[in-house]
Amino acid sequence: MADQDAPKPVNPDNMDLADLRDEIDRLDGEILQLISRRAQCALKVAEVKMKAAPDTAVFYRPEREAQVLTRVMERNIGPLGNEDMARLFREIMSACLALEKPLEVAYLGPEGTFTQQAAVKHFGRWVHSKPMPAIDEVFREVEAGACTYGVVPVENSTEGVVNHTLDSFINSNLRICGEVELRIHHNLMAGPNTQRDKISRVYSHQQSLAQCRKWLDAHMPMAERIAVNSNAEAARRVHGEWNSAAIAGEMAAQLYDLDIIEHKIEDAPDNSTRFLIIGTQDVGVSGDDKTSVVVSMRNEPGALYHLLQPFSDHNVDMTRLETRPSPSGNWTYVFFIDFAGHVEDVNVRQALDEIRKKAVEVKVLGSYPKAVL
Amino acid sequence: MADQDAPKPVNPDNMDLADLRDEIDRLDGEILQLISRRAQCALKVAEVKMKAAPDTAVFYRPEREAQVLTRVMERNIGPLGNEDMARLFREIMSACLALEKPLEVAYLGPEGTFTQQAAVKHFGRWVHSKPMPAIDEVFREVEAGACTYGVVPVENSTEGVVNHTLDSFINSNLRICGEVELRIHHNLMAGPNTQRDKISRVYSHQQSLAQCRKWLDAHMPMAERIAVNSNAEAARRVHGEWNSAAIAGEMAAQLYDLDIIEHKIEDAPDNSTRFLIIGTQDVGVSGDDKTSVVVSMRNEPGALYHLLQPFSDHNVDMTRLETRPSPSGNWTYVFFIDFAGHVEDVNVRQALDEIRKKAVEVKVLGSYPKAVL
Repeated sequence: MADQDAPKPVNPDNMDLADLRDEIDRLDGEILQLISRRAQCALKVAEVKMKAAPDTAVFYRPEREAQVLTRVMERNIGPLGNEDMARLFREIMSACLALEKPLEVAYLGPEGTFTQQAAVKHFGRWVHSKPMPAIDEVFREVEAGACTYGVVPVENSTEGVVNHTLDSFINSNLRICGEVELRIHHNLMAGPNTQRDKISRVYSHQQSLAQCRKWLDAHMPMAERIAVNSNAEAARRVHGEWNSAAIAGEMAAQLYDLDIIEHKIEDAPDNSTRFLIIGTQDVGVSGDDKTSVVVSMRNEPGALYHLLQPFSDHNVDMTRLETRPSPSGNWTYVFFIDFAGHVEDVNVRQALDEIRKKAVEVKVLGSYPKAVL
Repeated sequence: MADQDAPKPVNPDNMDLADLRDEIDRLDGEILQLISRRAQCALKVAEVKMKAAPDTAVFYRPEREAQVLTRVMERNIGPLGNEDMARLFREIMSACLALEKPLEVAYLGPEGTFTQQAAVKHFGRWVHSKPMPAIDEVFREVEAGACTYGVVPVENSTEGVVNHTLDSFINSNLRICGEVELRIHHNLMAGPNTQRDKISRVYSHQQSLAQCRKWLDAHMPMAERIAVNSNAEAARRVHGEWNSAAIAGEMAAQLYDLDIIEHKIEDAPDNSTRFLIIGTQDVGVSGDDKTSVVVSMRNEPGALYHLLQPFSDHNVDMTRLETRPSPSGNWTYVFFIDFAGHVEDVNVRQALDEIRKKAVEVKVLGSYPKAVL
């Protein structure tokens, strides 16, 4: 048993098949014991938390998970890739957490979308996930307490739903508790009876068509490009047509029984989509955090420049800014700003204090760990 | 580092939150090292196999995986359940195997069906899975070598496709390499605007309606029961109707945006569906195996009794027998027989030798490990 003996490092190069299998069995026994002990510690953590605050104990701590995964990736020496190893640990954490109480997570459905993939990527397989038909319903489900967290796309290069998510925050008290990034690949797909050289139409969301423009120019210059509402919609249409193709993710090909004619046709190789985890929780400092705020401004000359000044003064690195018309009136604007750092950081606090003096309203949507995986 | 120090067992009962987290971090470091070493051994196993047989090396060994999982469940002391622990090890093995070459697996689609769930349950998340529109196309995909394995339902209490799978074996040289069991729950579901007391129709596959008869008699005695082709089809129909409900699995509710009105309404609590893993591989002895054979018989008086005699004589435990008309002619029958044991077991070999003398043809579909999870 691992408790009695110090583990003996073995050089697998000098072993035959039977020895290697014995070694794997021995390693499995140790891994098993350690995972059991980890689960015991996790239960104990829950118990300590419950004793301290029976009504408000929070078992899932995004900042803590981010730290664990970051450390796993730093310490990993292979041969498994960092992402693979982090995924295994995500599942171990997910299983340990579910011992106490499985997380209930609402996401923008239907099943099989990238948002569901994002939910599983973030929370692991032990999560209970529930598809909702619209973004505001994901918000409502979490506000009502039916689910502890929600997952919504925010910078979605393919479905064009960013504004919907941003606008939902304006009328909601939910916080951002985390973010997930998924690499998105575009594929050209068609029904099984479609011949490649007969394709005269390519359907997709407008942004996906734009993201594959060079490939289409080079390989299908004559095909008409038709923009539709979503990539899933494009795949659905193509399902019944013999002379058309769709650009969409692999999942859409699976859902609509299409064959992928060409993989990864996007012009930019690192096309990715960002999702937010929403909830009611204030997330602590993980050490590598992001903060999102909404700022309402009067439409005055130089307003935006003045707004941004404190960020620069206090060395706060702004990563994104979106402007939206305010729902409250004709002459105000709302800015969604993402920057590096946590509201508990001194420089962030100082910058926000100054911005509060200039703005009509500043609402912190949340500080949360940067996407790890 | 774990290499230098013997692991110190710690009693989590005497620790505060910070200590517990330190302990978890320490455990994670050890788990990480051990998983890395396991992956190294797995790579080495592949290398040894390649050296011995460069062209025919087989990296995935179902009997070996079954043994590993069985041992994990035997050695598990909690607090994680045996199934949870085995699932984590399934993922660890899946990741290690994918290091060498990710498995390509065809399954009866579309995505989101129980068969896909079975494929992931059996092969883990690192598998590449490909949905096929029909059972015989799963067979063809594996025969053509495009996928190494296929997953098809064989005793499906809800979709009624058993015969299709059995018949496919008659004209195929594929073997059975494994089986998967999924517990299937039936749920009553309806659109979000449907009131429970307004439901006047319940759609489902005939077998699912039968499996929920007592519940329906007790709770919806007045609702008309309408049998349709599959449970997914039932859910699809209900999607647009305000006064009807469907009986189907949770995935169907997600796919068609229905709310589950009542979970687990099946009369028998352990309703499960069985899937087969098909491939070209002969699977070795795992120690807890099953064998499937097809036997062709002339239609003579007492034929079936004579056929079965050797099983009883040699203490071979028959677990299932299906009779199908033979495709080759009017007066012959084909029997699909499952029994406990492996073709390499002495008693099994003796029984089969005797059966061969009596039958027109005996074809061994495969010996494979019993479903572990």
